[in-house]
Amino acid sequence: MKVSFSVSDLAAIVQPRETRGSTAAVIRRIASLETAESGDLSFLGNVKYRSEVAESDASVILLPLDYTGSPKPDQVFLLVENPSAALALVCARIEQTLWPKPQPGIHPTAYIAPGATVAATATVGPLCVVEQDAVIGEGTFLQAQVFVGRAARVGDSCWLMPGSIVAAECVVGNRVQIQPGAVIGSDGFGYEFVQGRHQKVPQVGQVAIHDDVEIGANTTIDRARFSQTVIGQGTKIDNLVQIAHNVVIGRHCMICSQVGISGSTTLEDYVVLGGQVGTVGHITIGKGVKAGGQTGINTDVPAGSFINGTPHMPYMLERRITVLTRRLPELFQKVEALEAQLKKSFA
Amino acid sequence: MKVSFSVSDLAAIVQPRETRGSTAAVIRRIASLETAESGDLSFLGNVKYRSEVAESDASVILLPLDYTGSPKPDQVFLLVENPSAALALVCARIEQTLWPKPQPGIHPTAYIAPGATVAATATVGPLCVVEQDAVIGEGTFLQAQVFVGRAARVGDSCWLMPGSIVAAECVVGNRVQIQPGAVIGSDGFGYEFVQGRHQKVPQVGQVAIHDDVEIGANTTIDRARFSQTVIGQGTKIDNLVQIAHNVVIGRHCMICSQVGISGSTTLEDYVVLGGQVGTVGHITIGKGVKAGGQTGINTDVPAGSFINGTPHMPYMLERRITVLTRRLPELFQKVEALEAQLKKSFA
Amino acid sequence: MKVSFSVSDLAAIVQPRETRGSTAAVIRRIASLETAESGDLSFLGNVKYRSEVAESDASVILLPLDYTGSPKPDQVFLLVENPSAALALVCARIEQTLWPKPQPGIHPTAYIAPGATVAATATVGPLCVVEQDAVIGEGTFLQAQVFVGRAARVGDSCWLMPGSIVAAECVVGNRVQIQPGAVIGSDGFGYEFVQGRHQKVPQVGQVAIHDDVEIGANTTIDRARFSQTVIGQGTKIDNLVQIAHNVVIGRHCMICSQVGISGSTTLEDYVVLGGQVGTVGHITIGKGVKAGGQTGINTDVPAGSFINGTPHMPYMLERRITVLTRRLPELFQKVEALEAQLKKSFA
Repeated sequence: MKVSFSVSDLAAIVQPRETRGSTAAVIRRIASLETAESGDLSFLGNVKYRSEVAESDASVILLPLDYTGSPKPDQVFLLVENPSAALALVCARIEQTLWPKPQPGIHPTAYIAPGATVAATATVGPLCVVEQDAVIGEGTFLQAQVFVGRAARVGDSCWLMPGSIVAAECVVGNRVQIQPGAVIGSDGFGYEFVQGRHQKVPQVGQVAIHDDVEIGANTTIDRARFSQTVIGQGTKIDNLVQIAHNVVIGRHCMICSQVGISGSTTLEDYVVLGGQVGTVGHITIGKGVKAGGQTGINTDVPAGSFINGTPHMPYMLERRITVLTRRLPELFQKVEALEAQLKKSFA
Repeated sequence: MKVSFSVSDLAAIVQPRETRGSTAAVIRRIASLETAESGDLSFLGNVKYRSEVAESDASVILLPLDYTGSPKPDQVFLLVENPSAALALVCARIEQTLWPKPQPGIHPTAYIAPGATVAATATVGPLCVVEQDAVIGEGTFLQAQVFVGRAARVGDSCWLMPGSIVAAECVVGNRVQIQPGAVIGSDGFGYEFVQGRHQKVPQVGQVAIHDDVEIGANTTIDRARFSQTVIGQGTKIDNLVQIAHNVVIGRHCMICSQVGISGSTTLEDYVVLGGQVGTVGHITIGKGVKAGGQTGINTDVPAGSFINGTPHMPYMLERRITVLTRRLPELFQKVEALEAQLKKSFA
Repeated sequence: MKVSFSVSDLAAIVQPRETRGSTAAVIRRIASLETAESGDLSFLGNVKYRSEVAESDASVILLPLDYTGSPKPDQVFLLVENPSAALALVCARIEQTLWPKPQPGIHPTAYIAPGATVAATATVGPLCVVEQDAVIGEGTFLQAQVFVGRAARVGDSCWLMPGSIVAAECVVGNRVQIQPGAVIGSDGFGYEFVQGRHQKVPQVGQVAIHDDVEIGANTTIDRARFSQTVIGQGTKIDNLVQIAHNVVIGRHCMICSQVGISGSTTLEDYVVLGGQVGTVGHITIGKGVKAGGQTGINTDVPAGSFINGTPHMPYMLERRITVLTRRLPELFQKVEALEAQLKKSFA
């Protein structure tokens, strides 16, 4: 990131309650307290790092209001209510320079098929393809080498990153971000076994992605057999996730990296699945369920459960079973000792 | 999907033995019995949903010959031998409109290198790259932004979807479908550890994909060290699967999403691997083996086995072990009780 | 591969200590001893295949110096110190024909934004995009349909394969190979839960890939929240791996396929993670740690450990626990027998 803030620039962004010290440094980087050098901005986001503040070489440090120490020479402390939130304000400012709003228009190297509609305020970057009857909404940004298939509809203020793909007939809402290489609308994996061969079941449904969804890099979401595969409003999906055909995901779920959700499974709202979780198909995972990483979910899960293990069980049970499993050598020895003792007693 | 069928259109497709009722509705959608509305086609594919037929608002319902009920007003029952198969006929018809056969020819934005051969009936879509000495067969469709590398050969009637990649020297048979973002012919992961560094072992083999194979979105198949990585005829591979170098997969296998198969492993015909299964390298998985999701396969598996768990074991044993594992707290208590009783008895 | 070697071509490459027999065959392929036919080169790389040499139909076989047998008619034995290393020399020669060094220059279909810098000896292939202020180093090869984002820097002698993506501001060292479809610099998966919604935490850091790294097909590496996600010198990463934001990987690590490393985790040098391993975030995996396939790592791991299982434990313990777990049915029976015996004894 090409960053250049003076202390007064930063103060204008974070609006500190109190400023201690002074520095002539130009801030060019953000770093943790421990690794920061002169010219860096740092912050105390977690009390356990409090002792690192006095040692830090950062030129500017965001600190909570109750921090009592004094800065070194050529160092500034900015005291704010919430240093993490203050840092986020700075990052949001940097974000604007990192990804400046693109100019509307269609790059001359992009291919827009006849019959496609691109809103006047949308941006279609280099080497994108927009097929026949597709619709690209207001303020939406197809960055580069993006593919939008026939009759697909992408809403307003979306950002489709390089190499992302929205296949024919799929529907994307507003303010959706699709990271590079993600595939929306690949065929569902459906076959009938007929005379020793797998005969393809036509997959003629679509994927519907609701507003404010984010989809990770190289994630794949299959179109429904008929009807829709659905990703609910505000749900966030990480990289390399697989969502099979006819899956319905509720609102505001968090699906971590490398999760696989099998066909026709339903996630209600606010479900959180840790990395590498797998689920069988045709089950319902209730509202607010949380599953630890690598959990294997093989039946319906009641709302509010916290689960772990393969096959899944309640989190506290899984922790207990794990501890006992490691004591199996001891248990086998005890049982052998009991057997020996009994044998001797009744000999 | 843009669908528009009258009842007589549908009857012409599914050839019902009997028609009950009448409707003026134009069918524009397919939906399940429960969610169907006026204007929808539905079907009874599974006896457990039989009670939903009477409640369904679908305008047309495909039903088995033994169904005795009567339609509502403005509703039609079409009685057929196999409602699922009849629906598949309708879906196949829709499929033709969803993905109409493309016109042969090379899009002006595609790049075909000198020395490449594209059959006269093939279609090369926008922004594809076909490198030197590559061959594209009759009726094959490179949809958009596809890459076919130097001296690679793609057979007849294949469909390579947007962003899919067939690297140099790889060979693809006939009627092969490659979903978006799949990579055929990435380098095998082979290194020699020499003086503290990993030195690359050249990967100069190829991938051979036989006829009627389908490969899922963002799946990766590595080229062999030398010789071939092979995907046998009729095998279907889901999304995000990893096939390492020198793997040989037999005919008519089903490899579900996120499976990883390590180098030089062989799958015989008709193997089925559930989602997220992993295998070590240099083993043989026998004909017709079935492995449940997340199974970790670490040795040869005899033909016909049904396995589960990590490391894998026979499915029924794994089920039993899983049940007993959850009873470990009880077992520990029992053993403690026995110890206490013995101690007391012999005190 | 299009191969054509005479015996004297091969002898010039491998410099045999001794040559036995003669053949007029032109060598066109490399194959294993068992599958080799006339016209093939084979080798004895592992003593366990020694008995296959006498049966092999290969025209030329690379053998260790202590091999005493004689070739068949029309067959040549080349005796060398290390047959595997000798084969690697032949493969390296083949590699040059498989992937000939490209001519420097920018393909007319590529898009280079104003302000980007492409070295005179670099090659930018068809339909690549290089955004504003990006820098492409000497001898670097962007093969086809590659994306390099704004202000990203790619060093010298790199090879970015088709469809690979290096997003804005990321930094790639020298001699780095990026396989097809890999994504460097996708957004980290960071959200704050505010009033029932997941609010995005800006991800304004970068990815830094050091020299001599290789990155597999469709692998994803997220940019840091701020600061850097780091891949250390000489580290090799396989296909479909997920590296989350702020992860720091040391030098000369091996990360096998489908591994997932959660945010802010550190791997020290020479770590080896088997396929499908998952780690939680914010932990340190010490120098030289080895983890078996599918291991779930949920705490810090001391340097030099060999671990396995979910959650991870020392490899030997995990092996023992696995064996004992399979004896659970027997253990339950024993305990029941003990209970019965005691009940009877004290009845």
